[in-house]
Amino acid sequence: MKNNNGYSCWLQYDLLGQAAREAAVEWAQDIVLTEAAEQGPLKTAVDELTAGMAAMLGKRPAIVPAPVTGRRYILLGTVGGSAHVARLIGGGETSAFGEESYRIKTVCEPDREAIVLAGGSGKGLLYAVFHFLRLIVTGADLGSLDVTEQPKYGLRMINHWDNMDGSIERGYAGRSFLYADGRVLSGSPRIRDYARLMASIGINGIAINNVNVHRQETMLLTEQLLPDVAAIADAFREYGIRLFLSANYASPVELGETATADPLDAEVAAWWQRAAERVYRHIPDFGGFVVKADSENRPGPFTYGRDHADGANMLAAALKPYGGLVLWRCFVYNCQQDWRDRTTDRARAAYDHFKPLDGRFMDNVVLQIKNGPMDFQVREPVSPLFGAMERTNQIMEFQITQEYTGHQIDVCYLVPQWKQVLEFDTLVKGEGSKVKDIAAGRVHPYSHCGITAVTNVGDDDNWTGHHLAQANLFGYGRLIWNPELSAEQIAAEWVRLTFGDNSEVASAVTDILMESWPAYEKYTSPLGVGWMVRPHLHYGVDVDGYEYSKWGTYHFADRDGVGVDRTVATGTGYAGQYVGANAERYERTSSCPDELLLFFHHVPYTYRLQSGKTVIQHIYDTHFEGVEQVEQWIVRWRSLEGKLDAERFRHIGERLARQLDNAKEWRDVVNTYFYRKSGIPDQGKRVIFV
Amino acid sequence: MKNNNGYSCWLQYDLLGQAAREAAVEWAQDIVLTEAAEQGPLKTAVDELTAGMAAMLGKRPAIVPAPVTGRRYILLGTVGGSAHVARLIGGGETSAFGEESYRIKTVCEPDREAIVLAGGSGKGLLYAVFHFLRLIVTGADLGSLDVTEQPKYGLRMINHWDNMDGSIERGYAGRSFLYADGRVLSGSPRIRDYARLMASIGINGIAINNVNVHRQETMLLTEQLLPDVAAIADAFREYGIRLFLSANYASPVELGETATADPLDAEVAAWWQRAAERVYRHIPDFGGFVVKADSENRPGPFTYGRDHADGANMLAAALKPYGGLVLWRCFVYNCQQDWRDRTTDRARAAYDHFKPLDGRFMDNVVLQIKNGPMDFQVREPVSPLFGAMERTNQIMEFQITQEYTGHQIDVCYLVPQWKQVLEFDTLVKGEGSKVKDIAAGRVHPYSHCGITAVTNVGDDDNWTGHHLAQANLFGYGRLIWNPELSAEQIAAEWVRLTFGDNSEVASAVTDILMESWPAYEKYTSPLGVGWMVRPHLHYGVDVDGYEYSKWGTYHFADRDGVGVDRTVATGTGYAGQYVGANAERYERTSSCPDELLLFFHHVPYTYRLQSGKTVIQHIYDTHFEGVEQVEQWIVRWRSLEGKLDAERFRHIGERLARQLDNAKEWRDVVNTYFYRKSGIPDQGKRVIFV
Repeated sequence: MKNNNGYSCWLQYDLLGQAAREAAVEWAQDIVLTEAAEQGPLKTAVDELTAGMAAMLGKRPAIVPAPVTGRRYILLGTVGGSAHVARLIGGGETSAFGEESYRIKTVCEPDREAIVLAGGSGKGLLYAVFHFLRLIVTGADLGSLDVTEQPKYGLRMINHWDNMDGSIERGYAGRSFLYADGRVLSGSPRIRDYARLMASIGINGIAINNVNVHRQETMLLTEQLLPDVAAIADAFREYGIRLFLSANYASPVELGETATADPLDAEVAAWWQRAAERVYRHIPDFGGFVVKADSENRPGPFTYGRDHADGANMLAAALKPYGGLVLWRCFVYNCQQDWRDRTTDRARAAYDHFKPLDGRFMDNVVLQIKNGPMDFQVREPVSPLFGAMERTNQIMEFQITQEYTGHQIDVCYLVPQWKQVLEFDTLVKGEGSKVKDIAAGRVHPYSHCGITAVTNVGDDDNWTGHHLAQANLFGYGRLIWNPELSAEQIAAEWVRLTFGDNSEVASAVTDILMESWPAYEKYTSPLGVGWMVRPHLHYGVDVDGYEYSKWGTYHFADRDGVGVDRTVATGTGYAGQYVGANAERYERTSSCPDELLLFFHHVPYTYRLQSGKTVIQHIYDTHFEGVEQVEQWIVRWRSLEGKLDAERFRHIGERLARQLDNAKEWRDVVNTYFYRKSGIPDQGKRVIFV
Repeated sequence: MKNNNGYSCWLQYDLLGQAAREAAVEWAQDIVLTEAAEQGPLKTAVDELTAGMAAMLGKRPAIVPAPVTGRRYILLGTVGGSAHVARLIGGGETSAFGEESYRIKTVCEPDREAIVLAGGSGKGLLYAVFHFLRLIVTGADLGSLDVTEQPKYGLRMINHWDNMDGSIERGYAGRSFLYADGRVLSGSPRIRDYARLMASIGINGIAINNVNVHRQETMLLTEQLLPDVAAIADAFREYGIRLFLSANYASPVELGETATADPLDAEVAAWWQRAAERVYRHIPDFGGFVVKADSENRPGPFTYGRDHADGANMLAAALKPYGGLVLWRCFVYNCQQDWRDRTTDRARAAYDHFKPLDGRFMDNVVLQIKNGPMDFQVREPVSPLFGAMERTNQIMEFQITQEYTGHQIDVCYLVPQWKQVLEFDTLVKGEGSKVKDIAAGRVHPYSHCGITAVTNVGDDDNWTGHHLAQANLFGYGRLIWNPELSAEQIAAEWVRLTFGDNSEVASAVTDILMESWPAYEKYTSPLGVGWMVRPHLHYGVDVDGYEYSKWGTYHFADRDGVGVDRTVATGTGYAGQYVGANAERYERTSSCPDELLLFFHHVPYTYRLQSGKTVIQHIYDTHFEGVEQVEQWIVRWRSLEGKLDAERFRHIGERLARQLDNAKEWRDVVNTYFYRKSGIPDQGKRVIFV
């Protein structure tokens, strides 16, 4: 097997098996195209299909204006732009097509068969092409295709935390491929490859710089750097992706052009209007601003005695004439908390700050809300703010980069976590008010909404550091296209596209992925308590690392018990931010789900979980089990030698070994820590260091 | 009062009071000099005396070859070089003078009075001059002087941990004044000022670069940088100071000139011989090398299967023809320890590594041994290696820079700590085998020995960051000149020289200094256990910060007790490295001094100390007391407003406020940590956060 550095990710068209190639090759003669396709996604769709089939099948199809009698063909077109498409697909079901929707259908006419790829626009067609290529690779029966797709979410975004010095905040896959040494790498061919990857999984918006916007990145809004930004936007546009920028709330002050950033100051508003005009002159389809304000020492409206509606609306007014959005992050909390203060609860902060502002935001403001109330821990409850504001657009923020989930050294397939979040029923409008539907604007009539996530890519050859971390990037795109897909379906699809059709490899990788989030949770922090990580680094164990810090992140373990009392009755009241039965469920230990028990309650080590185990025994058991899981993966991985390319076999094996070291350290430190505190021995009499 | 930025330290000749000036001014007419004083310390002595008296008295004395009848005069000379000196002082008592000894004596001849400053050499005379100037400032009766001094230690050294990029490892007073941006600042006038300061307290050897020698610093041994080093040595030489360099053990490999650094390899030995020849060509009085080998990931002889005698002797052989020394550090331990391994004890390491090598080192090797077995904690026992090697030269290493003792943010006057170390009776040759005498070569017949310390200076205006940290630098020099001085005497002298003669200021500052080390110990880690600091930074509290680390630094606190069992009976056996009654005293809890109890023993929180308190109550009490002490200093400091210059009043007040914040954080975290673990309430019912 040829060594594979992973650069092509899931677009590895040389993996096609013999049978699939034979079945597909007879379709690789004519592509019928009746529309002009000179630029934009429509042209990209044609190019991708032609190149993809050529790469897979060794035969480049011809682009022809009409079918040849008796010969199979592929018909490519948009529902509004091609009468031929309309005739073969039928008007009725496509009339309601959004521009991102598409249909793929095999049509048997008397004299010949055709596969029709029909998009609601060039963009829809591009998605159809990537889908069709996937179908070929995965050996679908091309003689009976019938697929209709439309994305569930309007905004399907990626956030980069790349800085212009080339570093990536919380990046674990090398340096930035967007910037180096204070420059924008606008000429890099990698950016186009990246846009292609993102389009292939349906991403339609990318914010290209870190939400912590420092001096150099503030310059992205100026004439000096906008031509470079526009060059990236051009590459994105070909793949149907709008470019967003993270904006420094104090930009005009940072650039020395106003004395204040007060949102109610006319000069400030005028500055942002000029900035918007400037940006749209360079990038007519610019998406808008992502803003982290008044958070972790970033500037914001609080500095001027204004609230977040004042702040966001001022920016929104500047962007509105051009159709731009303000994605306003709700990650606002007191990061100078005194650990002695037991009344302040960081988990409450986003809800307490934003909920009272419902209805005050302009229509082109979207509140960007992290999936949990804290910060991307391995386990958190769903943020109670999501769906709590009926009259305010919201977008859900996930984290693909494995900040708290193993740094792309440890395997941690996050799609199951995201699915749990999406399936959570908030009850905000009664039963059936699931996160997945709120984010789609189906619970409240949001005009702009969807899902965003912090990406995990860098300039490593394989984009994501760990080869298996590609599954998170792929899975994110697939899931937010269609949240009804199961985590396992997505994993299996990714494995097939990435590793080919060896069933032993496929089942091993799929199993490892599916077991990986539970395993990571087991050997790290127990029962939803979180934060037992090395401060700042966020990899590796330090049980008390955040315990006496200013970050609002405590577990309160003492000799008797552990956990944070967030009940209404005796704690911080956070549980009361949920609605109805959810609030009740979290309020009582008896009904609180085991996996979140220590997030909501401080309980004795001897407290018996719904699982029947005591808390302390659960801690010991899961920590031993987590390590055993990794050991089993290593055995299984070794059995794959020779069944995949040597490079990825070696690379993944080496990361698994590092993961095992990490897991053992977590196990032993956590078990020893709690044994020293509780004095309660392990019922299994396994080794716990004293 | 004129603002004082502290640059002159204890050489502030403008502080003289009216009475002292009047008493001294009549001596400021003639300085009689009968010897040639064209260069070197003798010339410096003349210049310093002239300039010092001019600055203090407003009148520059004349240098004359003979006294004028009827006029008082000061006679300056060396015992071997001036018949006039010999006549006035008398030959008997000065015939045994070492070159660093001196005498200061008022002589009443029938026709006139003279003050004789007589040195064993120009260097001794220079020390006499600084001493005489101190006597003037402190208002001594110049009519009846009679002082004879000789330093107790041959090597009175300073180690810099400065790097060529301008950073200082564990430096808390700004950047380096020796290097910047990879260059040696050999032209900087500050270097001469520094040599003057050091000579004024008797320092006679300075190693100018960090013991962690990286690539750029390895170049200090090459023709490229030796001219710069020589320029510094020239400045030092005028003040009687020999320059030393820290050497990278793998220098020839680092420079790409040999393939190995094996000490038994002939090519390696030849390389070092050439290096020594080169260095001495530039610096004829070069002192030698300080070497940190096989320690904290530095290269060393272990890499080649050789021991430290092999390694040190190879370097010593290269330096021997020129009279150079090898100061070989004994800070060698396993810094990749597994915290799970309870049998390895870092405290044992230096003794275990070096003791078996006694007698194998060349005569110009000196083992450099940190005062304690761990690493400059606020409290440690004395290293059992010191004095344990009868046939191997040793030098004691202290740390002036406040790495673990408050970063020159907190006041911590360390002279009392050093005195305790020096007064420790090792019993290695029976009672009376004190560290202070071992370091002087009076217990074993060491040919080279003395005291060294890591300095606390940087390019801050006042050299040491905190003005009060100057007391440590001054105190170090004074103490190792004469270890019989009390810590309080030294403090009082320093305060008088630095702050002038306001008695309220003097007594406040002296009190704060004398109370400061006990206070720092109280609010930080209790009973000798150490290491409850923020990892790497070493400032601020993190009780478990080093508990599960690779550094061999644990306290083993659990719900029942705390401390490290280092007994022979049940622990690591470290206590057995001491001799006789010392070993017995440390071995038993009943005889172990309270302040070291947790260093040697793991005891229950309810264990009753010799003080009568339980361990847990001692922890609570000392942590409250430590904070109260700082609060009292602040009150007292505020009362000094207007009694010293505004700049130092403000600066020290601001540091005290920061110290109070630090002390409170230590108090609350330590108390909460142990309350959570032990569950035992404070008898005083004071606030302990749960």
